[in-house]
Amino acid sequence: MKILVVYAHPEANSYNGTLLAATRETLAAEGHELVVSDLYAQGFNAVAGPHDVTGRADKDRFSLGVEQMHAAQTNGFAADVQAELDKLMAADVLILQFPMWWFSMPAIMKGWIDRIFACGVAYEHGRTWKKGVFAGRRAMIAITVSAPAEAFLPDGKNGDMERVLWPVHAGVLGLCGYSVLPPFVAHGIPFCGEEAMAAQLETYRDRLRSLESTEPLFFHMGDDLDEHRLRSDVEPRTPGQHRGPRYHMAEPH
Amino acid sequence: MKILVVYAHPEANSYNGTLLAATRETLAAEGHELVVSDLYAQGFNAVAGPHDVTGRADKDRFSLGVEQMHAAQTNGFAADVQAELDKLMAADVLILQFPMWWFSMPAIMKGWIDRIFACGVAYEHGRTWKKGVFAGRRAMIAITVSAPAEAFLPDGKNGDMERVLWPVHAGVLGLCGYSVLPPFVAHGIPFCGEEAMAAQLETYRDRLRSLESTEPLFFHMGDDLDEHRLRSDVEPRTPGQHRGPRYHMAEPH
Repeated sequence: MKILVVYAHPEANSYNGTLLAATRETLAAEGHELVVSDLYAQGFNAVAGPHDVTGRADKDRFSLGVEQMHAAQTNGFAADVQAELDKLMAADVLILQFPMWWFSMPAIMKGWIDRIFACGVAYEHGRTWKKGVFAGRRAMIAITVSAPAEAFLPDGKNGDMERVLWPVHAGVLGLCGYSVLPPFVAHGIPFCGEEAMAAQLETYRDRLRSLESTEPLFFHMGDDLDEHRLRSDVEPRTPGQHRGPRYHMAEPH
Repeated sequence: MKILVVYAHPEANSYNGTLLAATRETLAAEGHELVVSDLYAQGFNAVAGPHDVTGRADKDRFSLGVEQMHAAQTNGFAADVQAELDKLMAADVLILQFPMWWFSMPAIMKGWIDRIFACGVAYEHGRTWKKGVFAGRRAMIAITVSAPAEAFLPDGKNGDMERVLWPVHAGVLGLCGYSVLPPFVAHGIPFCGEEAMAAQLETYRDRLRSLESTEPLFFHMGDDLDEHRLRSDVEPRTPGQHRGPRYHMAEPH
Protein backbone atom coordinates (compact mmCIF):
# COMPACT_ATOMS: atom_id res chain seq x y z
CA MET A 1 0.00 0.00 0.00
CA LYS A 2 0.93 3.63 -0.37
CA ILE A 3 1.28 5.19 3.04
CA LEU A 4 1.69 8.88 3.82
CA VAL A 5 3.11 9.80 7.21
CA VAL A 6 2.70 13.46 8.11
CA TYR A 7 5.16 14.14 10.88
CA ALA A 8 5.47 17.20 13.11
CA HIS A 9 8.31 17.46 15.59
CA PRO A 10 11.00 20.15 15.79
CA GLU A 11 13.79 17.78 16.87
CA ALA A 12 14.97 14.73 14.94
CA ASN A 13 16.83 13.44 18.00
CA SER A 14 13.62 12.83 19.96
CA TYR A 15 11.35 9.94 20.80
CA ASN A 16 9.11 11.09 17.97
CA GLY A 17 12.16 10.86 15.71
CA THR A 18 12.72 7.31 16.96
CA LEU A 19 9.11 6.42 16.19
CA LEU A 20 9.50 7.83 12.69
CA ALA A 21 12.68 5.84 12.06
CA ALA A 22 10.87 2.70 13.24
CA THR A 23 8.01 3.56 10.91
CA ARG A 24 10.32 3.76 7.90
CA GLU A 25 11.95 0.45 8.80
CA THR A 26 8.79 -1.43 9.69
CA LEU A 27 6.71 -0.34 6.72
CA ALA A 28 9.55 -1.03 4.29
CA ALA A 29 9.90 -4.53 5.73
CA GLU A 30 6.18 -5.04 5.14
CA GLY A 31 6.63 -4.06 1.50
CA HIS A 32 4.69 -0.80 1.68
CA GLU A 33 5.54 2.33 -0.24
CA LEU A 34 6.16 5.13 2.24
CA VAL A 35 6.09 8.89 1.73
CA VAL A 36 6.93 11.17 4.67
CA SER A 37 5.97 14.81 4.99
CA ASP A 38 8.37 16.03 7.67
CA LEU A 39 6.72 19.39 8.25
CA TYR A 40 9.42 21.02 10.38
CA ALA A 41 12.18 19.81 8.05
CA GLN A 42 10.22 21.09 5.03
CA GLY A 43 9.69 24.48 6.68
CA PHE A 44 6.01 23.98 5.95
CA ASN A 45 3.95 27.18 6.10
CA ALA A 46 1.36 26.55 8.81
CA VAL A 47 -0.93 29.46 8.04
CA ALA A 48 -3.87 29.09 5.65
CA GLY A 49 -4.52 32.27 3.69
CA PRO A 50 -4.59 34.03 0.33
CA HIS A 51 -1.12 32.65 -0.49
CA ASP A 52 -2.71 29.17 -0.73
CA VAL A 53 -4.20 29.95 -4.12
CA THR A 54 -2.94 31.48 -7.37
CA GLY A 55 -6.26 32.95 -8.52
CA ARG A 56 -9.30 34.25 -6.71
CA ALA A 57 -13.05 33.70 -6.89
CA ASP A 58 -13.49 36.93 -4.93
CA LYS A 59 -10.62 39.38 -5.08
CA ASP A 60 -12.06 41.66 -2.40
CA ARG A 61 -12.95 39.22 0.30
CA PHE A 62 -11.03 36.08 1.23
CA SER A 63 -13.04 33.09 2.39
CA LEU A 64 -10.86 30.00 2.81
CA GLY A 65 -13.52 27.49 1.79
CA VAL A 66 -14.69 29.52 -1.20
CA GLU A 67 -11.17 30.06 -2.50
CA GLN A 68 -10.15 26.45 -1.94
CA MET A 69 -13.19 25.38 -3.95
CA HIS A 70 -12.26 27.83 -6.69
CA ALA A 71 -8.69 26.58 -6.73
CA ALA A 72 -9.92 23.00 -6.94
CA GLN A 73 -11.95 23.89 -10.03
CA THR A 74 -9.22 25.93 -11.72
CA ASN A 75 -6.09 23.96 -10.83
CA GLY A 76 -5.17 27.01 -8.79
CA PHE A 77 -3.48 25.82 -5.62
CA ALA A 78 -0.11 27.26 -4.67
CA ALA A 79 2.79 24.90 -5.33
CA ASP A 80 3.37 23.95 -1.69
CA VAL A 81 -0.31 23.10 -1.21
CA GLN A 82 -0.52 21.14 -4.46
CA ALA A 83 2.59 19.11 -3.59
CA GLU A 84 1.05 17.95 -0.31
CA LEU A 85 -2.35 17.42 -1.93
CA ASP A 86 -0.75 15.09 -4.46
CA LYS A 87 0.74 13.02 -1.65
CA LEU A 88 -2.56 12.96 0.23
CA MET A 89 -4.64 11.90 -2.76
CA ALA A 90 -2.20 9.11 -3.65
CA ALA A 91 -2.11 7.55 -0.19
CA ASP A 92 -4.13 4.47 0.77
CA VAL A 93 -3.24 5.08 4.40
CA LEU A 94 -2.65 8.37 6.19
CA ILE A 95 -0.74 8.51 9.49
CA LEU A 96 -0.53 11.76 11.43
CA GLN A 97 2.36 11.55 13.90
CA PHE A 98 2.91 14.28 16.47
CA PRO A 99 3.51 15.08 20.12
CA MET A 100 0.30 16.10 21.86
CA TRP A 101 0.62 19.78 22.73
CA TRP A 102 -2.23 21.30 24.71
CA PHE A 103 -4.56 18.30 24.22
CA SER A 104 -4.17 18.77 20.46
CA MET A 105 -1.63 18.84 17.65
CA PRO A 106 1.27 21.25 17.07
CA ALA A 107 0.22 24.25 15.00
CA ILE A 108 2.29 23.13 12.03
CA MET A 109 0.23 19.92 11.84
CA LYS A 110 -3.02 21.82 12.23
CA GLY A 111 -1.89 24.10 9.44
CA TRP A 112 -1.29 21.11 7.20
CA ILE A 113 -4.92 20.11 7.78
CA ASP A 114 -6.26 23.66 7.33
CA ARG A 115 -4.44 24.06 4.03
CA ILE A 116 -4.34 20.55 2.50
CA PHE A 117 -7.73 19.15 3.48
CA ALA A 118 -9.08 21.68 1.04
CA CYS A 119 -12.73 22.24 0.27
CA GLY A 120 -13.49 20.88 -3.18
CA VAL A 121 -10.77 18.27 -2.95
CA ALA A 122 -10.76 16.58 0.47
CA TYR A 123 -14.42 17.31 1.18
CA GLU A 124 -17.36 19.36 0.03
CA HIS A 125 -21.05 19.67 0.71
CA GLY A 126 -22.58 16.21 0.36
CA ARG A 127 -19.20 14.50 0.20
CA THR A 128 -18.49 13.62 3.82
CA TRP A 129 -18.53 10.54 6.06
CA LYS A 130 -19.94 7.55 4.12
CA LYS A 131 -19.77 9.53 0.89
CA GLY A 132 -16.47 11.10 1.88
CA VAL A 133 -13.60 11.56 -0.55
CA PHE A 134 -11.42 9.11 1.36
CA ALA A 135 -14.02 6.38 1.91
CA GLY A 136 -12.29 3.02 1.69
CA ARG A 137 -8.96 4.41 2.86
CA ARG A 138 -7.50 4.22 6.35
CA ALA A 139 -6.11 6.82 8.73
CA MET A 140 -4.53 6.75 12.17
CA ILE A 141 -2.95 9.17 14.56
CA ALA A 142 0.25 8.26 16.41
CA ILE A 143 0.97 10.57 19.31
CA THR A 144 3.23 11.01 22.29
CA VAL A 145 1.94 12.42 25.56
CA SER A 146 3.97 13.53 28.56
CA ALA A 147 1.25 12.64 31.09
CA PRO A 148 0.86 9.05 32.30
CA ALA A 149 -2.00 6.96 30.92
CA GLU A 150 -3.93 7.26 34.21
CA ALA A 151 -4.42 11.00 33.67
CA PHE A 152 -6.36 10.29 30.45
CA LEU A 153 -8.57 7.47 31.71
CA PRO A 154 -12.34 8.11 31.71
CA ASP A 155 -12.06 9.52 35.25
CA GLY A 156 -8.56 10.91 34.74
CA LYS A 157 -7.80 14.48 35.68
CA ASN A 158 -7.33 15.40 32.00
CA GLY A 159 -10.53 13.71 30.85
CA ASP A 160 -10.96 10.61 28.74
CA MET A 161 -8.41 10.43 25.93
CA GLU A 162 -11.05 9.16 23.51
CA ARG A 163 -13.04 12.35 24.12
CA VAL A 164 -9.92 14.50 23.82
CA LEU A 165 -9.26 12.92 20.41
CA TRP A 166 -12.84 13.25 19.14
CA PRO A 167 -12.17 16.53 17.28
CA VAL A 168 -9.41 14.88 15.24
CA HIS A 169 -10.98 11.45 14.85
CA ALA A 170 -14.48 12.65 13.99
CA GLY A 171 -13.97 16.25 12.91
CA VAL A 172 -11.11 15.67 10.49
CA LEU A 173 -10.57 12.03 9.56
CA GLY A 174 -14.02 10.50 9.95
CA LEU A 175 -15.72 13.48 8.34
CA CYS A 176 -13.54 13.11 5.25
CA GLY A 177 -14.53 9.46 4.92
CA TYR A 178 -11.51 7.65 6.30
CA SER A 179 -11.84 4.43 8.22
CA VAL A 180 -10.15 5.67 11.38
CA LEU A 181 -7.98 3.17 13.20
CA PRO A 182 -7.61 3.24 16.99
CA PRO A 183 -4.97 5.80 17.95
CA PHE A 184 -1.47 4.83 18.96
CA VAL A 185 -0.71 6.75 22.15
CA ALA A 186 2.70 6.60 23.84
CA HIS A 187 2.28 7.84 27.40
CA GLY A 188 4.68 9.34 29.91
CA ILE A 189 7.22 10.47 27.30
CA PRO A 190 10.02 10.84 28.38
CA PHE A 191 9.35 10.46 32.10
CA CYS A 192 8.40 6.77 31.95
CA GLY A 193 12.04 5.81 31.28
CA GLU A 194 13.99 3.97 28.58
CA GLU A 195 12.48 0.55 29.14
CA ALA A 196 8.87 1.69 28.99
CA MET A 197 9.65 3.83 25.94
CA ALA A 198 11.21 0.84 24.18
CA ALA A 199 8.17 -1.29 25.02
CA GLN A 200 5.83 1.34 23.58
CA LEU A 201 7.96 1.47 20.44
CA GLU A 202 7.42 -2.28 19.98
CA THR A 203 3.68 -1.80 20.42
CA TYR A 204 3.81 0.81 17.69
CA ARG A 205 5.66 -1.54 15.34
CA ASP A 206 2.88 -4.08 15.88
CA ARG A 207 0.29 -1.44 15.06
CA LEU A 208 2.13 -0.57 11.85
CA ARG A 209 2.27 -4.23 10.85
CA SER A 210 -1.49 -4.59 11.30
CA LEU A 211 -2.66 -1.45 9.49
CA GLU A 212 -4.66 -3.51 7.01
CA SER A 213 -6.31 -5.84 9.52
CA THR A 214 -7.09 -3.55 12.47
CA GLU A 215 -10.77 -2.93 13.08
CA PRO A 216 -11.64 0.76 12.57
CA LEU A 217 -13.43 2.93 15.13
CA PHE A 218 -17.19 3.20 15.00
CA PHE A 219 -18.95 6.44 14.04
CA HIS A 220 -22.62 7.13 13.45
CA MET A 221 -23.30 8.03 9.83
CA GLY A 222 -25.74 7.41 7.00
CA ASP A 223 -28.98 5.84 8.21
CA ASP A 224 -28.15 6.53 11.87
CA LEU A 225 -28.68 10.23 11.18
CA ASP A 226 -31.79 12.27 10.63
CA GLU A 227 -30.34 15.39 9.01
CA HIS A 228 -28.27 17.00 11.80
CA ARG A 229 -28.93 14.61 14.70
CA LEU A 230 -29.00 10.94 15.55
CA ARG A 231 -32.29 9.27 14.83
CA SER A 232 -34.26 9.07 18.06
CA ASP A 233 -34.19 5.26 18.03
CA VAL A 234 -30.40 5.13 17.67
CA GLU A 235 -28.47 4.65 20.91
CA PRO A 236 -25.37 6.89 20.92
CA ARG A 237 -22.19 4.84 21.07
CA THR A 238 -19.27 7.12 20.32
CA PRO A 239 -17.10 9.30 22.59
CA GLY A 240 -18.71 12.47 21.21
CA GLN A 241 -22.41 11.75 21.28
CA HIS A 242 -24.76 11.09 24.18
CA ARG A 243 -28.20 11.82 25.61
CA GLY A 244 -27.10 12.49 29.17
CA PRO A 245 -26.84 15.82 30.96
CA ARG A 246 -24.72 18.69 29.78
CA TYR A 247 -22.25 20.37 32.14
CA HIS A 248 -20.74 23.32 30.28
CA MET A 249 -23.47 24.42 27.92
CA ALA A 250 -27.23 24.91 28.13
CA GLU A 251 -29.43 21.86 27.69
CA PRO A 252 -31.15 21.71 24.30
CA HIS A 253 -34.67 23.15 24.31
CA MET B 1 -10.17 45.60 33.51
CA LYS B 2 -7.39 44.85 31.07
CA ILE B 3 -8.68 42.57 28.36
CA LEU B 4 -6.61 40.80 25.72
CA VAL B 5 -8.41 39.58 22.61
CA VAL B 6 -6.40 37.18 20.50
CA TYR B 7 -8.02 37.14 17.10
CA ALA B 8 -7.40 34.80 14.17
CA HIS B 9 -9.16 35.38 10.88
CA PRO B 10 -7.59 36.00 7.46
CA GLU B 11 -10.25 38.47 6.29
CA ALA B 12 -11.19 41.72 8.04
CA ASN B 13 -14.39 41.97 5.99
CA SER B 14 -15.93 38.89 7.60
CA TYR B 15 -18.40 38.09 10.35
CA ASN B 16 -15.44 37.51 12.63
CA GLY B 17 -14.27 41.00 11.72
CA THR B 18 -17.71 42.32 12.64
CA LEU B 19 -17.54 40.54 15.99
CA LEU B 20 -14.13 42.07 16.63
CA ALA B 21 -15.37 45.58 15.80
CA ALA B 22 -18.29 45.04 18.19
CA THR B 23 -15.82 43.87 20.82
CA ARG B 24 -13.78 47.06 20.54
CA GLU B 25 -16.89 49.21 20.77
CA THR B 26 -18.61 47.31 23.56
CA LEU B 27 -15.59 46.93 25.82
CA ALA B 28 -14.63 50.58 25.38
CA ALA B 29 -18.16 51.62 26.34
CA GLU B 30 -17.82 49.49 29.48
CA GLY B 31 -14.63 51.33 30.37
CA HIS B 32 -12.28 48.41 29.88
CA GLU B 33 -8.77 48.66 28.52
CA LEU B 34 -8.54 46.52 25.39
CA VAL B 35 -5.50 45.07 23.65
CA VAL B 36 -5.98 43.08 20.44
CA SER B 37 -3.52 40.61 18.99
CA ASP B 38 -4.70 40.32 15.38
CA LEU B 39 -2.57 37.34 14.44
CA TYR B 40 -3.10 37.40 10.67
CA ALA B 41 -2.55 41.17 10.52
CA GLN B 42 0.61 40.83 12.62
CA GLY B 43 1.93 38.06 10.39
CA PHE B 44 2.37 36.04 13.56
CA ASN B 45 4.72 33.07 13.19
CA ALA B 46 2.59 30.03 14.03
CA VAL B 47 5.39 27.51 14.42
CA ALA B 48 7.02 26.86 17.80
CA GLY B 49 10.70 26.04 17.48
CA PRO B 50 14.30 27.02 18.19
CA HIS B 51 13.61 30.56 16.91
CA ASP B 52 11.41 31.10 20.00
CA VAL B 53 14.45 31.52 22.23
CA THR B 54 17.69 33.49 22.08
CA GLY B 55 19.81 31.08 24.14
CA ARG B 56 19.71 27.35 24.68
CA ALA B 57 19.75 25.01 27.68
CA ASP B 58 20.73 22.20 25.31
CA LYS B 59 22.38 23.25 22.07
CA ASP B 60 22.26 19.76 20.57
CA ARG B 61 18.69 18.76 21.20
CA PHE B 62 15.65 21.03 21.11
CA SER B 63 12.86 20.29 23.56
CA LEU B 64 10.19 22.99 23.51
CA GLY B 65 9.32 22.75 27.21
CA VAL B 66 12.94 22.63 28.34
CA GLU B 67 13.95 25.61 26.23
CA GLN B 68 10.89 27.64 27.20
CA MET B 69 11.76 27.02 30.86
CA HIS B 70 15.34 28.07 30.20
CA ALA B 71 14.19 31.21 28.41
CA ALA B 72 11.87 32.03 31.31
CA GLN B 73 14.82 31.84 33.70
CA THR B 74 17.23 33.81 31.51
CA ASN B 75 14.96 36.44 29.97
CA GLY B 76 15.66 34.65 26.71
CA PHE B 77 12.48 34.67 24.67
CA ALA B 78 12.58 35.93 21.10
CA ALA B 79 11.12 39.41 20.69
CA ASP B 80 7.86 38.29 19.04
CA VAL B 81 7.21 35.78 21.83
CA GLN B 82 8.08 38.25 24.59
CA ALA B 83 5.78 40.90 23.11
CA GLU B 84 2.79 38.55 23.24
CA LEU B 85 3.81 37.22 26.65
CA ASP B 86 3.76 40.76 28.01
CA LYS B 87 0.22 41.24 26.74
CA LEU B 88 -0.87 37.89 28.18
CA MET B 89 0.62 38.48 31.61
CA ALA B 90 -0.94 41.95 31.85
CA ALA B 91 -4.48 40.83 30.99
CA ASP B 92 -7.18 40.24 33.59
CA VAL B 93 -9.34 38.65 30.92
CA LEU B 94 -8.28 36.65 27.87
CA ILE B 95 -10.61 36.17 24.91
CA LEU B 96 -9.66 33.84 22.07
CA GLN B 97 -11.75 34.66 19.00
CA PHE B 98 -11.62 32.46 15.93
CA PRO B 99 -13.64 30.57 13.33
CA MET B 100 -13.86 26.88 14.17
CA TRP B 101 -11.86 25.01 11.55
CA TRP B 102 -11.91 21.23 11.76
CA PHE B 103 -13.54 21.15 15.24
CA SER B 104 -10.62 23.24 16.50
CA MET B 105 -8.83 26.55 16.05
CA PRO B 106 -6.92 27.86 13.02
CA ALA B 107 -3.25 26.89 13.11
CA ILE B 108 -2.15 30.48 13.70
CA MET B 109 -4.16 30.54 16.94
CA LYS B 110 -2.81 27.16 18.01
CA GLY B 111 0.68 28.45 17.31
CA TRP B 112 0.03 31.42 19.57
CA ILE B 113 -0.81 28.95 22.35
CA ASP B 114 2.14 26.66 21.59
CA ARG B 115 4.59 29.57 21.69
CA ILE B 116 3.13 32.02 24.23
CA PHE B 117 1.71 29.68 26.88
CA ALA B 118 5.32 28.91 27.61
CA CYS B 119 6.55 26.47 30.22
CA GLY B 120 8.04 28.38 33.12
CA VAL B 121 5.78 31.37 32.53
CA ALA B 122 2.20 30.28 31.81
CA TYR B 123 2.52 26.95 33.61
CA GLU B 124 5.02 24.57 35.10
CA HIS B 125 5.06 21.41 37.16
CA GLY B 126 2.96 22.05 40.26
CA ARG B 127 1.57 25.31 38.92
CA THR B 128 -1.63 24.26 37.17
CA TRP B 129 -5.38 24.39 37.79
CA LYS B 130 -6.06 25.75 41.30
CA LYS B 131 -2.42 26.73 41.66
CA GLY B 132 -2.24 27.88 38.05
CA VAL B 133 -0.45 31.03 36.97
CA PHE B 134 -3.71 32.64 35.86
CA ALA B 135 -5.83 31.72 38.88
CA GLY B 136 -8.23 34.56 39.60
CA ARG B 137 -8.30 35.68 35.97
CA ARG B 138 -10.97 34.93 33.40
CA ALA B 139 -10.87 33.49 29.90
CA MET B 140 -13.43 32.79 27.21
CA ILE B 141 -13.49 31.57 23.65
CA ALA B 142 -15.68 33.26 21.05
CA ILE B 143 -16.10 31.19 17.92
CA THR B 144 -18.03 31.00 14.68
CA VAL B 145 -19.19 27.70 13.27
CA SER B 146 -20.64 27.03 9.82
CA ALA B 147 -22.81 24.13 10.99
CA PRO B 148 -26.18 24.79 12.62
CA ALA B 149 -26.50 24.41 16.40
CA GLU B 150 -28.41 21.12 15.99
CA ALA B 151 -25.32 19.41 14.58
CA PHE B 152 -23.44 20.07 17.84
CA LEU B 153 -26.17 19.06 20.29
CA PRO B 154 -25.40 16.08 22.56
CA ASP B 155 -26.87 13.75 19.93
CA GLY B 156 -25.80 15.90 17.00
CA LYS B 157 -23.96 14.36 14.08
CA ASN B 158 -20.79 16.26 15.02
CA GLY B 159 -20.94 15.35 18.69
CA ASP B 160 -21.68 17.55 21.68
CA MET B 161 -20.05 20.98 21.34
CA GLU B 162 -19.07 20.96 25.02
CA ARG B 163 -17.06 17.79 24.39
CA VAL B 164 -15.55 19.22 21.20
CA LEU B 165 -14.37 22.23 23.22
CA TRP B 166 -12.97 20.21 26.14
CA PRO B 167 -9.39 20.23 24.80
CA VAL B 168 -9.37 24.04 24.73
CA HIS B 169 -11.43 24.64 27.86
CA ALA B 170 -9.70 22.08 30.06
CA GLY B 171 -6.42 21.42 28.28
CA VAL B 172 -5.37 25.03 27.76
CA LEU B 173 -7.38 27.54 29.79
CA GLY B 174 -8.47 25.54 32.84
CA LEU B 175 -5.09 23.87 33.17
CA CYS B 176 -3.38 27.26 33.33
CA GLY B 177 -5.67 28.35 36.14
CA TYR B 178 -8.17 30.57 34.36
CA SER B 179 -11.78 30.73 35.41
CA VAL B 180 -13.22 29.68 32.06
CA LEU B 181 -16.44 31.37 31.03
CA PRO B 182 -19.05 29.56 28.93
CA PRO B 183 -18.10 29.79 25.26
CA PHE B 184 -19.77 32.17 22.88
CA VAL B 185 -20.66 30.15 19.79
CA ALA B 186 -22.21 31.74 16.69
CA HIS B 187 -23.76 28.97 14.62
CA GLY B 188 -24.62 28.68 10.95
CA ILE B 189 -22.21 31.39 9.82
CA PRO B 190 -22.90 32.66 7.16
CA PHE B 191 -25.72 30.34 6.07
CA CYS B 192 -28.17 31.39 8.79
CA GLY B 193 -28.67 34.78 7.10
CA GLU B 194 -28.26 38.45 8.03
CA GLU B 195 -30.97 38.57 10.65
CA ALA B 196 -29.77 35.58 12.62
CA MET B 197 -26.19 36.82 12.38
CA ALA B 198 -27.23 40.22 13.74
CA ALA B 199 -29.10 38.53 16.60
CA GLN B 200 -26.04 36.46 17.49
CA LEU B 201 -23.94 39.63 17.44
CA GLU B 202 -26.25 41.16 20.05
CA THR B 203 -25.92 38.04 22.19
CA TYR B 204 -22.17 38.43 21.99
CA ARG B 205 -22.36 42.07 23.08
CA ASP B 206 -24.34 40.91 26.13
CA ARG B 207 -21.68 38.33 26.89
CA LEU B 208 -18.97 41.00 26.67
CA ARG B 209 -20.90 43.26 29.03
CA SER B 210 -21.17 40.49 31.63
CA LEU B 211 -17.58 39.22 31.61
CA GLU B 212 -17.17 40.05 35.28
CA SER B 213 -20.45 38.55 36.49
CA THR B 214 -20.80 35.39 34.39
CA GLU B 215 -20.50 32.14 36.33
CA PRO B 216 -17.44 30.16 35.17
CA LEU B 217 -17.52 26.54 34.03
CA PHE B 218 -16.94 23.79 36.55
CA PHE B 219 -13.82 21.61 36.48
CA HIS B 220 -12.63 19.00 38.94
CA MET B 221 -9.42 20.06 40.67
CA GLY B 222 -7.72 20.11 44.04
CA ASP B 223 -9.42 17.83 46.56
CA ASP B 224 -11.54 16.15 43.87
CA LEU B 225 -8.37 14.50 42.56
CA ASP B 226 -6.28 11.66 43.88
CA GLU B 227 -3.04 12.20 41.96
CA HIS B 228 -3.99 11.45 38.32
CA ARG B 229 -7.66 10.48 38.70
CA LEU B 230 -10.86 11.60 40.32
CA ARG B 231 -11.30 10.37 43.86
CA SER B 232 -13.53 7.31 43.78
CA ASP B 233 -16.24 9.08 45.80
CA VAL B 234 -16.38 12.04 43.41
CA GLU B 235 -19.11 11.89 40.79
CA PRO B 236 -17.76 13.10 37.42
CA ARG B 237 -19.60 16.22 36.25
CA THR B 238 -17.68 17.70 33.35
CA PRO B 239 -17.86 17.06 29.58
CA GLY B 240 -14.51 15.24 29.65
CA GLN B 241 -14.78 12.86 32.57
CA HIS B 242 -17.08 9.92 33.18
CA ARG B 243 -17.28 6.37 34.49
CA GLY B 244 -19.35 4.94 31.67
CA PRO B 245 -18.22 2.67 28.84
CA ARG B 246 -15.53 3.56 26.37
CA TYR B 247 -16.16 3.31 22.64
CA HIS B 248 -12.87 4.09 20.88
CA MET B 249 -10.23 2.91 23.32
CA ALA B 250 -9.73 -0.11 25.56
CA GLU B 251 -11.43 -0.10 28.95
CA PRO B 252 -9.06 0.55 31.84
CA HIS B 253 -7.76 -2.62 33.50
